[in-house]
Amino acid sequence: MSAPAPSKLAYVPFVSVANMMRLINRTGLSKMLTGIAAYIEEDFRRWELFDKAPRVASHSDVGVIELMPTSDGQVYGFKYVNGHPKNTAEGLQTVTAFGLLANVQTGYPVLLSEMTLLTALRTAATSALVAKYLAPEGADTMALIGNGAQSEFQATAFRAICGITKLRLYDIDPAATQKVLRNLSDQGFELTACSSAQEAIEGAQIITTCTADKQYATILTDNMVGAGVHINAIGGDCPGKTELHKDILSRADVFVEYPPQTRIEGEIQQMPADFPVTEMWEVITGKAKGRRDARQITLFDGVGFATEDFSALRYLRDQLESTGLYDALDMIADPDDPRDLFGMVRRAGIEGA
Amino acid sequence: MSAPAPSKLAYVPFVSVANMMRLINRTGLSKMLTGIAAYIEEDFRRWELFDKAPRVASHSDVGVIELMPTSDGQVYGFKYVNGHPKNTAEGLQTVTAFGLLANVQTGYPVLLSEMTLLTALRTAATSALVAKYLAPEGADTMALIGNGAQSEFQATAFRAICGITKLRLYDIDPAATQKVLRNLSDQGFELTACSSAQEAIEGAQIITTCTADKQYATILTDNMVGAGVHINAIGGDCPGKTELHKDILSRADVFVEYPPQTRIEGEIQQMPADFPVTEMWEVITGKAKGRRDARQITLFDGVGFATEDFSALRYLRDQLESTGLYDALDMIADPDDPRDLFGMVRRAGIEGA
Repeated sequence: MSAPAPSKLAYVPFVSVANMMRLINRTGLSKMLTGIAAYIEEDFRRWELFDKAPRVASHSDVGVIELMPTSDGQVYGFKYVNGHPKNTAEGLQTVTAFGLLANVQTGYPVLLSEMTLLTALRTAATSALVAKYLAPEGADTMALIGNGAQSEFQATAFRAICGITKLRLYDIDPAATQKVLRNLSDQGFELTACSSAQEAIEGAQIITTCTADKQYATILTDNMVGAGVHINAIGGDCPGKTELHKDILSRADVFVEYPPQTRIEGEIQQMPADFPVTEMWEVITGKAKGRRDARQITLFDGVGFATEDFSALRYLRDQLESTGLYDALDMIADPDDPRDLFGMVRRAGIEGA
Repeated sequence: MSAPAPSKLAYVPFVSVANMMRLINRTGLSKMLTGIAAYIEEDFRRWELFDKAPRVASHSDVGVIELMPTSDGQVYGFKYVNGHPKNTAEGLQTVTAFGLLANVQTGYPVLLSEMTLLTALRTAATSALVAKYLAPEGADTMALIGNGAQSEFQATAFRAICGITKLRLYDIDPAATQKVLRNLSDQGFELTACSSAQEAIEGAQIITTCTADKQYATILTDNMVGAGVHINAIGGDCPGKTELHKDILSRADVFVEYPPQTRIEGEIQQMPADFPVTEMWEVITGKAKGRRDARQITLFDGVGFATEDFSALRYLRDQLESTGLYDALDMIADPDDPRDLFGMVRRAGIEGA
């Protein structure tokens, strides 16, 4: 059965999970995280160009499915992502995702990609990029509280971008910590498994919280947090899901991606609507101050924003030509005569397609 | 290079353009339009179950890119669709689209499909379904004004669902009309090419307008439209794009899919915000009256709604098993241990993936 070959425009480059894994392994995770962070930083610098909106969420009793669109005027992108905390217990991913870039001038898609892995990378790259601006000077130790799917990516990004070499690990499930110890044993970290969050944060200049339960949890209380630390709080990322006691928020300077979204989804959903925050794009462009002094507690209330996915997809698209790590997906009908869809279908039938 | 095989859940059934054309040709266009119309009708009957929202649009100076999500509580669906009227002049499609269904319980995608063709089918199926409820009894003649990509699908749907056998064709570009004459010459219609819209509507009980220019055009003026006709106005479907003089709207009873979206995009964008309309789901469920008498002018101000795409995707999914017309797309990362994305990537590298 031979169909008439569609034109080149009919094909959308598609990066499968297998090709994403090849890309990560061939590029090297550290180098890829650093590369994605550079694209994210570049897009934060041109923040004002972007169409921005909180995600479009469809909630159910067990999870959420979201669409996260944005555009810089030339390129349009969106990500599909779900969040189902109960999935883990069923042997499924909590978060799966895929994303797309399209040409604003024509509306034609130009890239479709798996984004379960790419989201893990962009989340870690964003955290480490933010910490580059906010963490205390000379930080070499990070507490990693919550040792799920995101933790090794966070560790690797913080080593590559912020010079973190010592990790203090804690999870309510010791098997999760064992998994991180195994995965990172040959990665040149000094690794310490801890039996409590309190123990994990001892001596850490950076505290990363990335737990996954959908509930108002209190991973850190105010008395645990000493002066001068940077807190990278990325587990609280949807309504009803937070990790930090609100007294910490009151004591820290809070930095966010896009306030309208973070006020709905982030740690600051616990605070009044006018709770003061600083936008990261302002810090990165120099419009606002990041860390002021060595005693200040900085807190990144990270929820993940559409522009970061857009940046990661831009990075990915720029790797396609040199790596060839994609398939051509026959996703766009492209008849010779654009007014003749019907004729295209009929001819395909006659030609035995 | 052999990668470890992903689990079954990692694969999303994907219907390419080639497979969609095979499905249409093997099923037969009339049968497929009738089948899709039945799914659309079924979903209109359970209208109140659906999460409904106007589309999420990203406008540029040359077009629009939209996401159209919806959910019935069990299944989530969305469509990506662009509208770029200037594309035709560049040899591109005005509208390209693809869509997805996902399982609300897990958030995992269960179907990805091209929707440029499927949108053409669902648009025609919706128009004909609506006309089944609104057109005057015994209608056998339809004026088809605007002979672009949608016209043959409209003609075929109206024959299959409403018994239309006579078509009166008009387009400002005679080449478009010639294309329809060619495509439908062996389809059992009585075809008449007309030299004006006025001529086309003579003797027609149903008037379909599906022109594509993004402007406030006036395809029909009030004096042209006689008593008793059904107008199927589907070309006015975005802000700034209408086809009918507003005097016609005042004289007709106007039926719509989802008023909040139609007031933005449809013919009634010309009318006050409280202009009375009837929702089609109410007509279909018997809550509201459709055609009252033989002299009434009924007007379907169709813009295309997310539930119709959802219905079309549900129809498509139900054909997959029996036809096998899909590919398995490696789009979802599915590690053995859902907390171990990092380990999955590393193992793929070691195993030479």
